[in-house]
Amino acid sequence: MSQPSATQPPPTQLPAIAPTFRAIDVIRKKRDGGELSRAEIEGLVEGYTRGEIPDYQVSAWLMAVVLRGMTRPETAFLTDAMLHSGEVLDLSALPQKKVDKHSTGGVGDKTSLVLAPLAAAAGVTIPMISGRGLGHTGGTLDKLESIPGFNVNLPVADFRRILAACGCCMIGQTAEIAPADRKLYALRDVTGTVESPYLICASIMSKKLAEGIDALVLDVKTGSGAFMKNEKDAAFLAELMVETGERMGKQVVALITDMDQPLGNKIGNALEVVECVEIMQGKGPDDLRELCLELAGWMLYLGGSAKTVAEGKKKSSDLIASGAALEKFRRMVELQGGDPHVIDDLRRLPQAQHTMAVNSERAGFVAAMQCEQIGTACVILGGGRERKEDSVDPAVGIVLHKKVGDPVVAGEPLATIYYNAEAKAQRARLLIEQSCQISNAAPPKRPLIHQVMPRQVARSGEKH
Amino acid sequence: MSQPSATQPPPTQLPAIAPTFRAIDVIRKKRDGGELSRAEIEGLVEGYTRGEIPDYQVSAWLMAVVLRGMTRPETAFLTDAMLHSGEVLDLSALPQKKVDKHSTGGVGDKTSLVLAPLAAAAGVTIPMISGRGLGHTGGTLDKLESIPGFNVNLPVADFRRILAACGCCMIGQTAEIAPADRKLYALRDVTGTVESPYLICASIMSKKLAEGIDALVLDVKTGSGAFMKNEKDAAFLAELMVETGERMGKQVVALITDMDQPLGNKIGNALEVVECVEIMQGKGPDDLRELCLELAGWMLYLGGSAKTVAEGKKKSSDLIASGAALEKFRRMVELQGGDPHVIDDLRRLPQAQHTMAVNSERAGFVAAMQCEQIGTACVILGGGRERKEDSVDPAVGIVLHKKVGDPVVAGEPLATIYYNAEAKAQRARLLIEQSCQISNAAPPKRPLIHQVMPRQVARSGEKH
Repeated sequence: MSQPSATQPPPTQLPAIAPTFRAIDVIRKKRDGGELSRAEIEGLVEGYTRGEIPDYQVSAWLMAVVLRGMTRPETAFLTDAMLHSGEVLDLSALPQKKVDKHSTGGVGDKTSLVLAPLAAAAGVTIPMISGRGLGHTGGTLDKLESIPGFNVNLPVADFRRILAACGCCMIGQTAEIAPADRKLYALRDVTGTVESPYLICASIMSKKLAEGIDALVLDVKTGSGAFMKNEKDAAFLAELMVETGERMGKQVVALITDMDQPLGNKIGNALEVVECVEIMQGKGPDDLRELCLELAGWMLYLGGSAKTVAEGKKKSSDLIASGAALEKFRRMVELQGGDPHVIDDLRRLPQAQHTMAVNSERAGFVAAMQCEQIGTACVILGGGRERKEDSVDPAVGIVLHKKVGDPVVAGEPLATIYYNAEAKAQRARLLIEQSCQISNAAPPKRPLIHQVMPRQVARSGEKH
Repeated sequence: MSQPSATQPPPTQLPAIAPTFRAIDVIRKKRDGGELSRAEIEGLVEGYTRGEIPDYQVSAWLMAVVLRGMTRPETAFLTDAMLHSGEVLDLSALPQKKVDKHSTGGVGDKTSLVLAPLAAAAGVTIPMISGRGLGHTGGTLDKLESIPGFNVNLPVADFRRILAACGCCMIGQTAEIAPADRKLYALRDVTGTVESPYLICASIMSKKLAEGIDALVLDVKTGSGAFMKNEKDAAFLAELMVETGERMGKQVVALITDMDQPLGNKIGNALEVVECVEIMQGKGPDDLRELCLELAGWMLYLGGSAKTVAEGKKKSSDLIASGAALEKFRRMVELQGGDPHVIDDLRRLPQAQHTMAVNSERAGFVAAMQCEQIGTACVILGGGRERKEDSVDPAVGIVLHKKVGDPVVAGEPLATIYYNAEAKAQRARLLIEQSCQISNAAPPKRPLIHQVMPRQVARSGEKH
């Protein structure tokens, strides 16, 4: 019985029972807007990975996270639990600093193929584990596989050996790396729970930190071809990933870069390999070169090969001019089973049977491109995947002859479609036509690099 | 290519594809706060019931509903889809109006056992399909099964026959009634998605409307022993159920009634049967009698046996005084295989082996009872279920000697525990002691009936 003055009874005093983890309690707490502890998040992720917690409980929790959000500590706990659900590579036997770059994905976004050999040529070790294309975006593994013989499915022992031998190696996710992410991603994909910056952050960061890296450069895309269409959302995700990485003891820098039109001129797997080789030959389009040098500058700075980002950019530019970057690429291709002769004779890459021009109906300036539609046109040609289990045609794609701001005359080609099936090419042409807007006046110029995060690191990177 | 003046490209014009139902689209739409169409809700409920849509998609959708809510049309579409997932009884062969009562559940809430025979004695047909106790609340089926031989698992043909013969029949949910609700409820129970007024409304209303009734009286409980602890939440649910029923062409009235202390004095299955028989004998506690007459008044009014609720109450009171209600109960027990002699000799009901008094430590007034704790005490004794698969002990329970507002002297018994296991009784005693607050002054009186909804019906019910 309570004391006379009490208006509320004391808490129920039943014999203490050892606390047991119950997924339902974690779901309810997040549903009601509570902040989960490290133990609660670990219990959920570990139980799910071991198959003890069913899909239907985790999907309810994921939806609660999408709608309630997560605090910064929760996001770091989730990332950490997913990271430690599998193997975390220990590359401490390699003396150099280990740095990677990750992009949130876009159209014609092929910088990884240049950056890995370029930064390795500067003495930084680049243990890059990449993904495949999904939706309207391309994937690094698909691009690499257009090189005859190139093997992205290497065991960890080979990955280490190649890293030691040439400083860079590019493979796909192994079964041992972040199994929780693989399981969670498959569930998110079918339950409408992909679109959460917290879940995206944990998915990206858990996989990247499993590579055993010291530092990470993030290329967060914004614009009509990116998953984050507006800059505010991109900046939120970038800031979240930077803070999560820092909470886990890693140096992380994020560049928010433009994806309001395709990057470079070539879209499609083999075509993008061609363009990357051209960049490493000192040729290729300006926007792609500029972004590669900017990202490489940061990678060299964080990797200890340059005292400032500016010095890193200069050094990268020199390594391209000297041919060292291309030589490193050739070496990596060879070590991963690919045909190194493609670099000297790009016609050895898969070639589409036909081409079709997309001409401008009128004169003026390219005012804008609906970038996602151009990515979708490439998927329709067979260059990307509509479902995970689809295979890709490495030869097909699109070469843009005009970019935003360029003048055009009536009848001039805007793009060339490389195709193997006429009906698909017709559908792709319609999409490309619809995606290009021609205006009478030149549009205002959009910057390639929108922001660098965190800002204080951005400044120190420039000054030191 | 777009027209010169256009700043946005026209919508993509791909060949039209016949729209197919995809659960993921419905999940995303609700996640983003959209309003679902009848076709979308039907597609989800039907696909889930047929086993074509997996649990993990439905649980994500349920969580989105919990956090985003539903509009009134969506709630009615969901109720309708769940109702039509199984058999809807056609009782049109029975000439009288069919009316039922449903309570959202509480402690000592035993009115159904009085109301079914009482309203049937007045000429209304009561096809009552009830549930079992879960959590701290009791269940009508468990109470009925404490009567030796009483069978609540009757096929629909027997249900019809008994209804025709005596005007009331009380059974459990059959496999044919609202299978979508059974499947959804089991999923909600393990995914933290029980607590949504929209989902609660659809679950209750789909089952009740499957009984083939013309009208429904809802007893929505509020207070420390109810699922809706505060009156605002109870009123919201009540209003939602009334509107949903009306959208589906039924007369529905909701009474928001007090569950801040147990209803009546007896808690526990056989003990509650005893108290119901006492009420039908013209005895028993005032609060239980008052609520039974109020609810019966509405049932008779909606069932066409009384021109006003007041007349319905008066008629109900007379049917108790004449013994007609008790005779109807005896007949129903007999028709459902139960031993009718228990009514004349209540000792034929299961009896607990031991009793234990819970005495007041001090003098004063009972200021409040933590009603959920008293319900939990009964569960601990074995009178309720902690898990669905648990069996119940019909004999155990609690008899309250004092209710809120009653004066007590030091050492006077507040309650008597009826038990079969000493250790359980000690835990129950501790809980009951903690749940009872004794103060120096009498507390303000809380009304038994808080509100009647909808208000215009409440008024017309009183006036006509």
